[in-house]
Amino acid sequence: MHTVLKSASKEVVIGHDQPFCIIGERINPTGRKLFQEQLRKGDLSRVDIDVADQLAGGAMALDVNMGAPLVDEAGLMVQAVKLVQGLCDLPLCIDSSVIEALDAGLRTYEGKALVNSVTAEDERLDAILPLVKAHGAAIIALPNDEEEIPEEPARRLELARKIVEVATGTYGIPVEDILIDPLAMPIGADTSLVNRTLETIHLVREELGVNMTLGASNVSFGMPERHVLGACFLPMAMQAGLTSAIMDARSPEIVRAVKAADLLLDHDPWGANWIAEHRKREAENKREAEKR
Amino acid sequence: MHTVLKSASKEVVIGHDQPFCIIGERINPTGRKLFQEQLRKGDLSRVDIDVADQLAGGAMALDVNMGAPLVDEAGLMVQAVKLVQGLCDLPLCIDSSVIEALDAGLRTYEGKALVNSVTAEDERLDAILPLVKAHGAAIIALPNDEEEIPEEPARRLELARKIVEVATGTYGIPVEDILIDPLAMPIGADTSLVNRTLETIHLVREELGVNMTLGASNVSFGMPERHVLGACFLPMAMQAGLTSAIMDARSPEIVRAVKAADLLLDHDPWGANWIAEHRKREAENKREAEKR
Repeated sequence: MHTVLKSASKEVVIGHDQPFCIIGERINPTGRKLFQEQLRKGDLSRVDIDVADQLAGGAMALDVNMGAPLVDEAGLMVQAVKLVQGLCDLPLCIDSSVIEALDAGLRTYEGKALVNSVTAEDERLDAILPLVKAHGAAIIALPNDEEEIPEEPARRLELARKIVEVATGTYGIPVEDILIDPLAMPIGADTSLVNRTLETIHLVREELGVNMTLGASNVSFGMPERHVLGACFLPMAMQAGLTSAIMDARSPEIVRAVKAADLLLDHDPWGANWIAEHRKREAENKREAEKR
Repeated sequence: MHTVLKSASKEVVIGHDQPFCIIGERINPTGRKLFQEQLRKGDLSRVDIDVADQLAGGAMALDVNMGAPLVDEAGLMVQAVKLVQGLCDLPLCIDSSVIEALDAGLRTYEGKALVNSVTAEDERLDAILPLVKAHGAAIIALPNDEEEIPEEPARRLELARKIVEVATGTYGIPVEDILIDPLAMPIGADTSLVNRTLETIHLVREELGVNMTLGASNVSFGMPERHVLGACFLPMAMQAGLTSAIMDARSPEIVRAVKAADLLLDHDPWGANWIAEHRKREAENKREAEKR
């Protein structure tokens, strides 16, 4: 199943037979005090750096979230989408818990966006899915509802199935435009949580066959050596069936682990990409050495 | 299912609920010209360094292979086993294709060894399994026979099942003392080979439930950035059900990836080991910095 995302000029295909789709997580003020203050002043200059860093790191799409306290999130989203689409040609993921911000972002966006996100709550489904349909966008769906963020993979699958049924049946959204988020939780809180995520990925792959994405950085939250954990988690999740992640595209360790998994899982024909990236790095290292 | 290996004084348990068992691959002259020459002269001094390096790197058992051209392999195996057991208290894996070398190694070894390896060939089974039984050792079993190294995971499972049946039924070897090798092949030769290995691991885990080991370095043979590939492959294989590997214990990237996978797969209660190793590294770095 192929999820196609588009900017004005570029297309990215997410699928189980495709290289893993790296969605840069960085344009997001969560946990970034300085960026939050800048956004409150309407200052989006930081976004330039974040876009450049993620492009250099190998991002194939970018998440855009403007959710900070005391800001006009919809207004900022419009500005951010325009700005980022002016800076690069990657497809964007319009990320907000505020319906107005999603709507504003989608109205501004040129191309076929990914929307982050909807849950299995009826109210959210009824508010967000019509927007997704109207704009011909794709949607990230989280299998939690009013009552719970379920621990059990079987229950997550059940809620994922509900969302797929409502989105396709009631709103006519193509099933290939739904990405299930199998819910990645911090290993520091409970060491059984990653097994639940991996099991959910496996079930969704087997039972629904749809594409998936998740917030990969959550897994290592609060633990030391986060990059090593991220570089370990993503190959395991990819093997289970994960086809994209919202992740730290600025971390060479994690991006390289994803590329290694692409090779090992046979999504890099003849290892051409692996060898080309190695040669590029060698050439860069040589240039660096000559400068010294 | 628990495979217990023993030296004279130490026990290592391999199992699906245990931390991954890192078996150091280094005491092996394959591809090491200088070491081969030394062995031809009966010079085993290099082994001291190999043992020390692998201990420092985190090996939990050590493979011992003395197979070089024009050597008395059985005689060297006796010397090497004595030497290594004098240098460290790790359980050993007696590794040879020569029955006499396996026999000599097992006679010399103090404890419960792992034998590397037997295939599904009748002649090999009939020669090696009685030795394994007589010494109460554990055995690594490769699912290939006279005709083929099968590509198809289902055929590998079939041959693995045959070995388990012969070993337990005909020779009375406990099933928990059989480690299946799902056959890791170089990704450089064919990019679909790792998927076959992972699928085999999955099938053996589901159908036979036994422990497994493999030669992890094979996977990256001939490719650049082998450590990155090894650090990516092992977590995927562990997730599929691999419980140990004969691997490069001197590579911090690969060993750390294994420890990360132990944590993420819930084989490191409360992350205690992960955090302790992080603190140890921090303390070492601090000491290094103070020296400068």
